[in-house]
Amino acid sequence: MTGQKGSLDNLSINFATVRQGGTFGEIVDACLRHGISAISPWREHVAAAGLEEAARIVASNGLKVTGHCRGGFFPAPDVAGRRAAIEDNRRAIDEAAALKADCLVMVVGGLPKGSRDIAGARAMVADGMAEILPYARQAGVKLALEPLHPFYAADRACLNTLKQSLDLCDTLGEGVGVAIDVYHVWWDPDLEAQVARAGRNGQIFAHHICDWLVPTTDPLNDRGMMGDGVIDLPRFRRMIEAAGFFGPQEVEIFSHRWQARPVDEVLSVIVERFANVCQPGASPAAA
Amino acid sequence: MTGQKGSLDNLSINFATVRQGGTFGEIVDACLRHGISAISPWREHVAAAGLEEAARIVASNGLKVTGHCRGGFFPAPDVAGRRAAIEDNRRAIDEAAALKADCLVMVVGGLPKGSRDIAGARAMVADGMAEILPYARQAGVKLALEPLHPFYAADRACLNTLKQSLDLCDTLGEGVGVAIDVYHVWWDPDLEAQVARAGRNGQIFAHHICDWLVPTTDPLNDRGMMGDGVIDLPRFRRMIEAAGFFGPQEVEIFSHRWQARPVDEVLSVIVERFANVCQPGASPAAA
Repeated sequence: MTGQKGSLDNLSINFATVRQGGTFGEIVDACLRHGISAISPWREHVAAAGLEEAARIVASNGLKVTGHCRGGFFPAPDVAGRRAAIEDNRRAIDEAAALKADCLVMVVGGLPKGSRDIAGARAMVADGMAEILPYARQAGVKLALEPLHPFYAADRACLNTLKQSLDLCDTLGEGVGVAIDVYHVWWDPDLEAQVARAGRNGQIFAHHICDWLVPTTDPLNDRGMMGDGVIDLPRFRRMIEAAGFFGPQEVEIFSHRWQARPVDEVLSVIVERFANVCQPGASPAAA
Repeated sequence: MTGQKGSLDNLSINFATVRQGGTFGEIVDACLRHGISAISPWREHVAAAGLEEAARIVASNGLKVTGHCRGGFFPAPDVAGRRAAIEDNRRAIDEAAALKADCLVMVVGGLPKGSRDIAGARAMVADGMAEILPYARQAGVKLALEPLHPFYAADRACLNTLKQSLDLCDTLGEGVGVAIDVYHVWWDPDLEAQVARAGRNGQIFAHHICDWLVPTTDPLNDRGMMGDGVIDLPRFRRMIEAAGFFGPQEVEIFSHRWQARPVDEVLSVIVERFANVCQPGASPAAA
């Protein structure tokens, strides 16, 4: 079924979803047991395995790396802090290149400690991106700005809408696009227009999925399994495909509940839900 | 000091901030003890006191009512539910009229139970607003749409940005504006332009204040006291005044912490913070 839409080829597992699963190699093995061969690791997993060994595991298993998590966190209270962030982003670019990742996911950072100047933080992000971009281009690594839900504007990412992120992409030019995570943008009244715009300009680099639970009891670690919340995932995927992106849906679920369950159980549920509630033709069953 | 900007005449207390304070009359007495004569009650306080008695307390003390909380919650799974919401909104309009409130604050509601159709919910809101508007105009009650933080899109309000709310205001016409709460909109990259737009069209009906804490540990009840978080309140107020709104700043703090403290202590802190960190000329001290 290689390449067929809706086949497991189009399902990617972000390691944050199965962080209870152990090492880089162990998580890869778990994915392979379930027929999943696309992954999105975090830097700490890669660092613990060693970059060469991680790249070897990727290559020898023919894995697709839909994203490397993560670069970003540009704003800092002083020049030294901002320089350190640039250096660290260069290392992340090297890693993404070694892993042949589709993109380096950029969680850009929020307000510098002690600051109330969100416009200033946004300027630091633009400056930082401009500074690392030539290096990323040379390495052949695409940078995917990830707008984060406005809940995280202060402490994680001051890019909070797709429009704002695409405006920055347009300023920066070639090699910069967006990672569109349903959790962060599902509420946006401007969503459809901005997804279409991103598609027109070839700026969709990743599509992340999970669900929004009602109620959401923890702002950080209560994301839902696909189908358990209120996001119309089939409609969302139709929008993404109408915009020309047919790459994998990457499952990224930060959740205390799911991280307390065995990895094989989590992956079984994901495979089932991916087939039944995430495909563009799935029926939007009642929440 | 009547009418002077920054005087206590320009400070209003939303009853949610001091709900531990007892009855309508008791909360009013507490405000008056602190020199505060502008209030924004909730419907349950008014209902418990009786509308006539609440209106008598307002009139006999020369209180300004900066808003009546709240109308809205239009979306419902069936016609009967939507009709019930319309009827309930008419009663809220009657109350706002009796209290001579500056506006009826509209928290419009989220997804109907069982729905994943946020566009449909938004259409229900537009329909509901159009239906109650003639009644509100006849009663001389202005309706203030309150865009709520996207965190609440699913369960409280599917209006989530100022732009989206103002677009609806423009469609509805005379008698509809917005309540701008710093907590809900501080993160919006389009904030300044939309506040200016609202001002140009005379659509700013209320300005609510509190602060955004880092970290925010509870999505519902962890709003911060002004000065304890990362919102640049002086800059925000300058934006509001530049747009032509010089009405009171209304303090609305949903917080388990502050609601555990005696009302007089809370009001003392508010009066001090209002003077020192909320005025347009205050220095944006480090967070």
